[in-house]
Formats: sequence, structure tokens, C-alpha cells
Amino acid sequence: MNDSNRASIKLTDLGKQIVESILADRFPVLEIPDRNTSNIVYNAKQNRFVLGDSTNIRDSSNINHIRSFTQLTWVASFAKQLLAASRTSSLRDLYYSSEAFDVVFKDQAESDRIVTDLECVTGLPRESFGIFPDEHSSIYGELVMRYTVPGYDGREIDLTISPDGLPIGPALMTAEPIRTDAEIVLAVESGGMFSRLIETKAWQRFKAVLIQLGGQPPRATRSLIRTLNERLDLPVYLFTDGDPWGMHIARVIMSGSANSAHIENLTTPGAVWIGVTPKDIVSYSLPTEKMNNADLKRLDELSRDVRYSDHEWQKHIEEFRKLREKAEQQAFSRYGMDFVVDTYLSDKII
Amino acid sequence: MNDSNRASIKLTDLGKQIVESILADRFPVLEIPDRNTSNIVYNAKQNRFVLGDSTNIRDSSNINHIRSFTQLTWVASFAKQLLAASRTSSLRDLYYSSEAFDVVFKDQAESDRIVTDLECVTGLPRESFGIFPDEHSSIYGELVMRYTVPGYDGREIDLTISPDGLPIGPALMTAEPIRTDAEIVLAVESGGMFSRLIETKAWQRFKAVLIQLGGQPPRATRSLIRTLNERLDLPVYLFTDGDPWGMHIARVIMSGSANSAHIENLTTPGAVWIGVTPKDIVSYSLPTEKMNNADLKRLDELSRDVRYSDHEWQKHIEEFRKLREKAEQQAFSRYGMDFVVDTYLSDKII
Repeated sequence: MNDSNRASIKLTDLGKQIVESILADRFPVLEIPDRNTSNIVYNAKQNRFVLGDSTNIRDSSNINHIRSFTQLTWVASFAKQLLAASRTSSLRDLYYSSEAFDVVFKDQAESDRIVTDLECVTGLPRESFGIFPDEHSSIYGELVMRYTVPGYDGREIDLTISPDGLPIGPALMTAEPIRTDAEIVLAVESGGMFSRLIETKAWQRFKAVLIQLGGQPPRATRSLIRTLNERLDLPVYLFTDGDPWGMHIARVIMSGSANSAHIENLTTPGAVWIGVTPKDIVSYSLPTEKMNNADLKRLDELSRDVRYSDHEWQKHIEEFRKLREKAEQQAFSRYGMDFVVDTYLSDKII
Repeated sequence: MNDSNRASIKLTDLGKQIVESILADRFPVLEIPDRNTSNIVYNAKQNRFVLGDSTNIRDSSNINHIRSFTQLTWVASFAKQLLAASRTSSLRDLYYSSEAFDVVFKDQAESDRIVTDLECVTGLPRESFGIFPDEHSSIYGELVMRYTVPGYDGREIDLTISPDGLPIGPALMTAEPIRTDAEIVLAVESGGMFSRLIETKAWQRFKAVLIQLGGQPPRATRSLIRTLNERLDLPVYLFTDGDPWGMHIARVIMSGSANSAHIENLTTPGAVWIGVTPKDIVSYSLPTEKMNNADLKRLDELSRDVRYSDHEWQKHIEEFRKLREKAEQQAFSRYGMDFVVDTYLSDKII
């Protein structure tokens, strides 16, 4: 059963539950997992954030609950229509679409929150209902995927078809990996590094599927990384800027974020952060910038973050603190254009 | 002769000029078109900004000029190496690469400025030297392009291959348009609208090549829009948000920006801004937001901008000012998901 069938069944169940209450002369009541920080716990075994057992009741007989109850049922029915028509919608479009139904959201932040409620109720990510954010990452490499979207269903695409890479949009995100000649996934933070690794044929040399993260990547990208890791058994290497923000991009891909604690199948616990580590900055004598207050504050926060409790991560934080310097992944260019591939990545990817 | 051959010849000429001076025991001197606002003039006939006749001298015997003279010759030699190796570089990478040669730039803003100097000296855009920014737009439609980049040279790509669209990166930007079944180019501001027009098959209905601008688009995108307009004779329609920023995205595609007054072949004077116009906001009763101070200030600036001197544009500004409201292109979703295609675009694209 594919994702959208599963999503459709979950929505039908939700609808039935509401209708049956009404037919039995009871006000419908929904039980929603509690997303407050007090109920977000780090599961050391799964190596990721999960929701605890606490739940909230949304009771349509309670006047304080009616607004959000109505909003949630509307979002569910909107999602059902999307699935029935094999269509997608951006979060922004969903917000504006509500006006057609006289359902009122104060702003997009409110409708985004209700979409998250629907994820919690159904246990499925919004992407399986065809609801996506605007931004996306890119991918390139010797990997064949098979589309499942209408008009392209069953068509295969070789991810080396475009030397500029392919966007990880709704179609590619829901495509099935079919076969690959690659042996690893190498995800990099910047578009510049992504282009360089394509044109220097680093993807051939390291037998790598390349992914451009573009900062903290959308969930579709995190989900695809996990899929390639699990289904094709490809080890995952993460190459980011050498600063607290870059390190945290890697950590979220591995261990998830509190915001998506209610979603499964997003994390890749076995992924490896190859750098730029604070140690790399020193041993490769990279050109650096001084850390600013925001960087140092971020290090303090991360040092208290449960995802960084392991000795290895605490050590990275300690070293960044002593160094008080940061370096971008582009900084290797000081040794010429090929250094990052010929030396750094060759040192790091064994 | 293709772009990179032309660029290579220009760089060789520049090098020869410098070497010949030295061999004749003269300090080399470069004459660079002046980019100060006083020398940027609006050419009403060409319908775009151009540089006037004023030039600056960069004299290597003048101690105040040595720094920028050296930086410029280094950027020229870096560009020559890129061309020789058929490689590309991001602006950021170029900045870091300078360290390998002990050429000092204070920051990337300084190296970006010197790249612009090289554009002025040679009269060619940095893209023809293989130097690109990080960001990009996307494209989708019944159009076949032929790549010219190494490893893909001569390979054709059908721009309907990926239902998520294709990025307009270094490879696609330098590709040749071969054939098309489309009759127009329809460029839209947001990624959400781009996805919607793909999945509703609006590209078939309007026989359109779709381009996602993503805000003020990179020059590669403006250049590709012009190419499709000129070489394939496709009329260009621009669909942006209904606010001063969206309107200005359209105006820059038509008439260029002061920042790129020194570059030819970027503008598409005959492109049409279909909206969202202030009139559309009223006649389609779109959901709006109040304009903030930044919006109103922007309208004041635009009302004095030479690109808006035509009656038609002054009228748009006047109407926005009276309305004091703005609307996103997504706002049509209030009438359901298909309204924007079935009604609005059908009204506007004749």
C-alpha cells in the first residue's frame, strides 16, 4: 500500500469517527497527542525525539474548542480532496483556500499549526496528504527513481539527466528508488559545493548520490535521505559549514527536531557528519571568521541539548568554544579548486 | 562562436594589452566604464538602463589603484583558468579561491565588485566566464534544449522530463533551445504557483513554457527568458504578487536594473505584466493585507523611477496608493484551487 492510500484510509477513519458520534447524538471528541515541550522526549534507543503519552482532548461541545475543531475537520476534508484529485498544495495555498469555505485562520501560522494537528491525529506527515512547503533541495547521481504522480506514473528518471541536478519536489519525493550504481549518499550544505562535486565528477570518484541541503533542509529531503539509507543500504555522509548551524543541520538529519517529534521515518541515525569540524579548521588551516554572539549563544544552547549529550558531540562544542572561529565549506578553495575533492573528501570518506 | 570562445578571446586581449605595456616599459593602464549612478542612463529607445560615456582609469603606476588593478587581473586569470578547464565557480568560491594566490579581498562584496569590473572591461556577463551565484530559478514545459557543458555536450533534454521542474543552473543556462511546441512563456513568482500550473496541466492548456522566478530572479533566468523570446519568438507573460515588489520583478525583467546596466541581452522589453495588478485586486475581490510603511515607501521610490515614467505604470502606482492593500498570487485560491487557471489566467492570456 502506498503513502496516499494509507493517508486516504486514515482520513476516512477520522471522518467516520466524527460522523458516528453525531449519529449517536454525541458531540464528536478528538484525542490529539500533546506537542508541548513537556511531552517531547528524546528516545535514546531510537536516537530521536518522540512524543510522550500525554494527549489533549478537542471536544466539539466545548465552546473554546469549536474553532480549532472546525479548522481541523476542514483541513482533513481539504486533504481528502487533494488525495482524491491526485493534487498537491503548498502550505500557503492551503491557507488561502480556506477562504473559499469561509473557514477562518488568523494567519498562515495558525493554518500551519492545524496541519501539524492533522499529522498528529493521523500519525502521517503532511506530505502524504499532498501538502508541501515552497522550498526544496536538489539531488544528482547514478540513481534511477520511478515516479508515482499522475501523468508520470511508472516513468523512470535517471538522476544524472540534468547536470544542474533535480529538485526534490512533490514528484521526486514520492518516487520509488529502483536501482543505483552508487555506494554512498553525500549531502552537502551549499549549492556551490553541490555544483562543484557534479562538475568535477566527484560523484563518480566516490560513487555518491549527491544531495544539496541548502541550509536546514525541508522534511521531504530528510525523508528521501532516510529512504536511500534504508531501502538501498547506502551509508550517508553529511558535509556542512564548520559552525554551530552547520553542525546542527547534520544533527537534525540524524536525530530529528522537536517540531517533527510526531513524525516517524524522517531521521537517519547512522548518518556521519564528516565536517567541517572544529578540528578540520585547525588541521587544514582553513580561512576563518570570528564567531559572533549569536554563534556563541547557539553553542551554549546546543551544549544543553539532549541530542548533544554524547561525548563526541560535547567535544565538538568544546573545541568550537575554544577556537571561537568558524569556516564555510567553500573555505577549502584557498588551496585551489580541486583540493576539497582530491584531499579533504578523500581523507574523510573511507 | 559560442559565449565561452568569445569570453576567452576577450580575456586574451586583456592579457595582451597588459603584457604589451610592460614590454614597452610602460605601466599598464585600464579604462573601465564608469558605473556610478551619474553615468547610468535610461535609454528610452532600448527601453533599458545603459552606461553613459564616462570612464574611469585604473593606472598601475598609481599607488591608490594598485590593489584593485591587481585584483582585477587576478579575477581575469581565474576566469581564464575556469574557461580552459570548462569549469564553473560560484561567486563565493571565487572569493575563497583568491587566498590560494595571496590575493586579498576584504570580503565577498569586494570580490563581487571586481567581478563586475571585469564584466565592464570585457562587456560580457560573468556567466560567460563560468561564474555564477548560488541561487537559481526553475523551468518546465514542452521545450527541448541541447547542453553545451562538458560531459553533456550535444545531449538534448526535454523540459517536461521532471514534474518538479528543472533548475536553471550553469548547464541549462548555457544550453541551446532546439525546438518547442509551446506558444508563450509564462513566468510566475512563487514555487507554489509554479507547481500548481504544472500539475493542473496549465502548461498544456496555455501552450506555455513555465518559469518560476522565486522573487527577483538571478540574471541567468532573465537571460534565458530573453533567449526564448528572441530565438523562439515566444511572447512573455509575467505573473507576480500584487504589491510594489512583485510589480518591480516584472519591470526589471522588461527594462533591467541599474546594477546590470553594463550587461546587454538581459532584458525583454516586450514582456507583459499580467498582474496581480491593483485593478485585479478590486475586480476579483481578492483577500488582501494592508500595505506597511516599507510598501508605501517603495511606491514613492518607484513613482520617481525612470522605468515607471510611462502613463500605464504611473497609473498602477496611483491605484496601489489609493488602495493601500496588497495581494499575493496565491490569493486566488479563495475561489478554489482551479480558479487561477480556469478564470484568472484565461482572462489574462489571450
